[in-house]
Amino acid sequence: MKKTFIILLLAISFQTIKATEATWMWYPGDYEIWLANKMQLERTERNTFFPPFWRLYSHYNLVDFYKILDLQNDEEIEIQVEGRYNVKVDGKFVSGTPNRVTIPAHAKDIHIKVFSLDKVPAVFVNGKTIKSDTTWRVTYEDLEWIDESGKASDISVTEWVKVGTWNFNKSTDFPSEFKLATKPKNAVSSTPHNNGYLVDFGEETFGFLKFHGLTGEGKIMAYYGESKEEALSTTHCETLDEIIIKNEDNDLTLPTSKAFRFVYIVPEASVKYDNISMLYEYLPLEEKGKFRCNDELINKIWDISAYTMQLTSREFFIDGIKRDRWIWSGDAYQSYLMNYYLYFDNDMVERTLWAQRGKDPTNTHINTIMDYTFYWFMGLYDYYLYSGNIEFVEQLYPRMVSLMDFCLGRRNDNGMMVGLPGDWVYIDWAPLSKEGELSFEQILFTRSLEVMSKFSKILNDKEGEKIYTQEYSDLKERLIDYFWDDNANAIAHSKIDGKLSENITRYSNMFAIFFDYLDDIKKEQVKNSVLLNDDVQAITTPYMRFYELEALCQMGEHDFVMNEIRDYWGGMLDLGATSFWEKYDPTDSGVEHYAMYGRPFGKSLCHAWGASPIYLLGRYYLGVEPTAPGYEEYTIKPHLSDLEWAEGEIPTPFGAIKMKYDKKKMTISSDGGVGTLLFKSNSKPSVKGAKIIDLGDKNYKLTIEKEKQYQIRYSQTK
Amino acid sequence: MKKTFIILLLAISFQTIKATEATWMWYPGDYEIWLANKMQLERTERNTFFPPFWRLYSHYNLVDFYKILDLQNDEEIEIQVEGRYNVKVDGKFVSGTPNRVTIPAHAKDIHIKVFSLDKVPAVFVNGKTIKSDTTWRVTYEDLEWIDESGKASDISVTEWVKVGTWNFNKSTDFPSEFKLATKPKNAVSSTPHNNGYLVDFGEETFGFLKFHGLTGEGKIMAYYGESKEEALSTTHCETLDEIIIKNEDNDLTLPTSKAFRFVYIVPEASVKYDNISMLYEYLPLEEKGKFRCNDELINKIWDISAYTMQLTSREFFIDGIKRDRWIWSGDAYQSYLMNYYLYFDNDMVERTLWAQRGKDPTNTHINTIMDYTFYWFMGLYDYYLYSGNIEFVEQLYPRMVSLMDFCLGRRNDNGMMVGLPGDWVYIDWAPLSKEGELSFEQILFTRSLEVMSKFSKILNDKEGEKIYTQEYSDLKERLIDYFWDDNANAIAHSKIDGKLSENITRYSNMFAIFFDYLDDIKKEQVKNSVLLNDDVQAITTPYMRFYELEALCQMGEHDFVMNEIRDYWGGMLDLGATSFWEKYDPTDSGVEHYAMYGRPFGKSLCHAWGASPIYLLGRYYLGVEPTAPGYEEYTIKPHLSDLEWAEGEIPTPFGAIKMKYDKKKMTISSDGGVGTLLFKSNSKPSVKGAKIIDLGDKNYKLTIEKEKQYQIRYSQTK
Repeated sequence: MKKTFIILLLAISFQTIKATEATWMWYPGDYEIWLANKMQLERTERNTFFPPFWRLYSHYNLVDFYKILDLQNDEEIEIQVEGRYNVKVDGKFVSGTPNRVTIPAHAKDIHIKVFSLDKVPAVFVNGKTIKSDTTWRVTYEDLEWIDESGKASDISVTEWVKVGTWNFNKSTDFPSEFKLATKPKNAVSSTPHNNGYLVDFGEETFGFLKFHGLTGEGKIMAYYGESKEEALSTTHCETLDEIIIKNEDNDLTLPTSKAFRFVYIVPEASVKYDNISMLYEYLPLEEKGKFRCNDELINKIWDISAYTMQLTSREFFIDGIKRDRWIWSGDAYQSYLMNYYLYFDNDMVERTLWAQRGKDPTNTHINTIMDYTFYWFMGLYDYYLYSGNIEFVEQLYPRMVSLMDFCLGRRNDNGMMVGLPGDWVYIDWAPLSKEGELSFEQILFTRSLEVMSKFSKILNDKEGEKIYTQEYSDLKERLIDYFWDDNANAIAHSKIDGKLSENITRYSNMFAIFFDYLDDIKKEQVKNSVLLNDDVQAITTPYMRFYELEALCQMGEHDFVMNEIRDYWGGMLDLGATSFWEKYDPTDSGVEHYAMYGRPFGKSLCHAWGASPIYLLGRYYLGVEPTAPGYEEYTIKPHLSDLEWAEGEIPTPFGAIKMKYDKKKMTISSDGGVGTLLFKSNSKPSVKGAKIIDLGDKNYKLTIEKEKQYQIRYSQTK
Repeated sequence: MKKTFIILLLAISFQTIKATEATWMWYPGDYEIWLANKMQLERTERNTFFPPFWRLYSHYNLVDFYKILDLQNDEEIEIQVEGRYNVKVDGKFVSGTPNRVTIPAHAKDIHIKVFSLDKVPAVFVNGKTIKSDTTWRVTYEDLEWIDESGKASDISVTEWVKVGTWNFNKSTDFPSEFKLATKPKNAVSSTPHNNGYLVDFGEETFGFLKFHGLTGEGKIMAYYGESKEEALSTTHCETLDEIIIKNEDNDLTLPTSKAFRFVYIVPEASVKYDNISMLYEYLPLEEKGKFRCNDELINKIWDISAYTMQLTSREFFIDGIKRDRWIWSGDAYQSYLMNYYLYFDNDMVERTLWAQRGKDPTNTHINTIMDYTFYWFMGLYDYYLYSGNIEFVEQLYPRMVSLMDFCLGRRNDNGMMVGLPGDWVYIDWAPLSKEGELSFEQILFTRSLEVMSKFSKILNDKEGEKIYTQEYSDLKERLIDYFWDDNANAIAHSKIDGKLSENITRYSNMFAIFFDYLDDIKKEQVKNSVLLNDDVQAITTPYMRFYELEALCQMGEHDFVMNEIRDYWGGMLDLGATSFWEKYDPTDSGVEHYAMYGRPFGKSLCHAWGASPIYLLGRYYLGVEPTAPGYEEYTIKPHLSDLEWAEGEIPTPFGAIKMKYDKKKMTISSDGGVGTLLFKSNSKPSVKGAKIIDLGDKNYKLTIEKEKQYQIRYSQTK
């Protein structure tokens, strides 16, 4: 994955966007922080409240919304607010807390000032020309000032930040009342078991259990399980509900959603019900990315990956649905990449990036994990590359700077980041030494500095550019030499007290490959001495398999990877998986597969990082990647591997890139951007109405223009 | 006011305080921030919500309370929580959200983790030996960390901060439900006026209007006034209530309190009521400080000052009760000093200091005002001096450091603090130039650095001590020379572009005197060329009169000051004041007295800074001041001035210092501390059972030991 950074001479525009539709607005990032707290606090462990063990941030409680007006005529506006508020027109209070205000012609500006503690201060304004939208500015009183008379002064609107919005486009769409969608889903079976019933919903699912025809008074216990064994383990299932029924004679939907396939229902004898269903809870998303091929196992793997993504793509990208329901930065980083090949839902990426960052002052790593801080920087760059949305980057840039300051302040005397008290150095769920300077962490740190160097340049932060570019160059210059083990022909796992450890692990070696931090000789060495070397400790989480397989694709090992996908993800399917898991070790057997964290059912059987085939198939087999922000430019490098044919669609900001390949023919079209198709052919290829360039050595190149369909005849080379 | 800093070789103790009584606990400062927001948001302007125009902070929403246990036997504890929570004993969840938990003998520790957004996460625990109190520690997840297994690690309890508490000592005393006390108060008259009634409560008051015997449906308007004229000005009174009556046939107490003496009630014809009273709303406080003398005008001034303090000493020390109801740092600084001579209520000082500081990151001055940041530092030192509470200082110290960092980062090339965009440079309500480097601001800045230098030493912050002491010494060294005007024999008001302005004002000159930043020659020069010079612009706010009169007392001008008190405060009484005002200009007449801020009734007629005679009489006439923290040592320098006799009590941490003076006899006793009585006598004084030391030049000294009564015979020298 040679994601070379694209340097743009992009003139940052401070022009306001033309108002189109009224939408609820708030201080940028605040709604995301609030909603993330709400979601993450839904975690329970056997009915005990289990909030995150990292710092949660709060929204600003008192904010001032502001717009410069250009009114020719009097205009009546509707105002809806979440919070206590006042309205000022031209610096003067409008009496009371009005829902309708007539703004006089030639009024210069309007302020709406809101306080709210339990929900985010938010405003909806709708008039003929005055509408709440991203032309408004906002402050949390960090910028306003008053003159001697106590009167708020006019200050330049550019000093204020642009409001945040999402898609609450009606006055009655109160942001605080946001809920995911639901739809009814029936159980496939209900089987008596001891004093209760084992109910099976046929596949991994997420939602609210619903009892129909309840009568009597008493208690019902519901034990949830992603596996049958878990549901029946009343003492060790990870989640449960204790439901007190009082004089019900009706349907009851439980108030909190849970993840499960099975539920073991144990009612007291005094309570009866007719049957059980559920409300499936989900974020409605369109699967814009598509993939089909002649191999039904691969198709199934793609489908289950997509379903795993659907279950874990909610208010935010979460890790797994049963246990944490939390936003983990390393997990989300992969969800972003999968998302670009499935939903291309930018809003969810933005929400998640806001929520993870929180606010200043920063005194811990994101999720308390050092590597997870770095993934946040990397995820921002990917987002920019795939979406082209530099305005979002600009909004977050001050928080990037402060987070990088936090990192720079934690280096040791060698300029390396090592775990300090309070830091969790994670890498992967595997027995790994965390002692000393870890090459893996330094590689991610280098990459993060590279991201800051690029963004500071694009955003015209001259001083920042100087600092970050220097720090990046310095570290990259030393990095490989510092950790290279000439005997092992690989990057060592760590350096302890100035001495390389003899430990070689896959992690830093594979990241060095796709960050392009190794020369070609070292790349080849690493491929053989590490990636394809069974003596090096195997990876057992889909999380790190993601990068391992990506590195192998980068090295041209598409056939190997295709078979690994069949084996590894196919292996889970063989065990009955209906979504992909947090961890899969083929050497486990039976209920061993469900255990983790020292608990028999601790493992999540629906984990976002399990869905990486979505990404691998789109990125390395359909072969599409952006090479300029927002797919203004992109490449297509098709790889059929051992498939007979493959087809699919890759979503982009301007629509989709559509392709269908077999060994003799390729059909390609795109709704926008300029594509470069790079392919091999044994015979001279041909296309109608365009020119194929012969790059030599059976390599060819064709420029894909938008809104044209290309049919290429060729002969595939293995 | 030569408040020489007392340097203590005080060993900071990290010992936990022995548990005594269970009390609600929270993250320190958070409840104060929450309550301050709640109070300050009560401001309305003619029925429009008027929140502060500075940044409001929030409490930490997710906090973890922790205690190391030392249990010999099983112990059942009661747990009450504000927020969603879980309980962990020895790292393991107690199932559900229990209100009663049995802690097994030899359990090592207990955690209670709480999330709450709308109110402050707070916990009450009560068992035989385990009680919520200041032996508990707390974090907002800024310090906790987890190891690879995801399990919270044991960390040293000293890394966590001590919980905050107040006086919520019962499980049902929920901190979020705190309310001030109320008691019924009747109107003294109700006079028909146009379509309504002018109701007079006889004196300035604060509370909830109450209608008795309401019948009918319709609207009642209530127009409040601190003056009769204001209440009757339905178009310009500062506060009003619009009350909608629906089928009432009962008593109605309005939901929000207001400040007023008069209310003009205008009911619609369809609504009737029998009569009106009010619920006076107040913080129950004991007037521990006392003062009486032979001059009834002075006694009245003391009484009205005390009543003014009572009205403005509420959840926090506020400025005035009618308009802002906000916490202003410069105003509060004076309230603290008055409080030490009236209530000695340390809790209110602490609450106010917490609330004003807010949290990091700091990007504006306190109340947005540069001088108000400095008063905060100065107020902290005074608090330490009067209360001796170094533990409180220690808790706030990190926020002192970050606020001082903020200041240090805003100096100009000459090391001076000038107003930057966003800063309000206030000084006083007077026409004053704010251009260039103001001597007043630099003097307060120097004093603030002095405070930091002292605290860093006491708290053993070696690095801080080095920095602050250096900065303080440097600035103090240059300060007077930098601003001294040899022609005017005074400190100039400002320096603009390197040139002294010809403007001489009282402010910096008087502060330089009581900070002891001038040598004796310059002091005398300033006294004559500024303080007693009528050509220098007069001060018209009690706010700055406080310091002016204090400086004159420092210079021995007690007689002059006594007459000024009679004239200035007596002048307000002559105009019918029942509390002291925000501003008083004897040259105004009639309703001019009520106008301010360009509004006819903008002025507050009950303003905390109007109450300074409380302080002046206690501090300079009864003559008592602490000279070691917490009155471990103190001096008494009685000054009868032109009074025949005076008596009073000065509250201290250990009780009171009581005294009665006339021209021949002094009676003094104290409940604690070591006092030094310094006095003049024309004849050789005598005392029973103690030894008076002759200092020469008719000056005498007597050591006052605790719990003894001294009767000194002497002859007063004028």
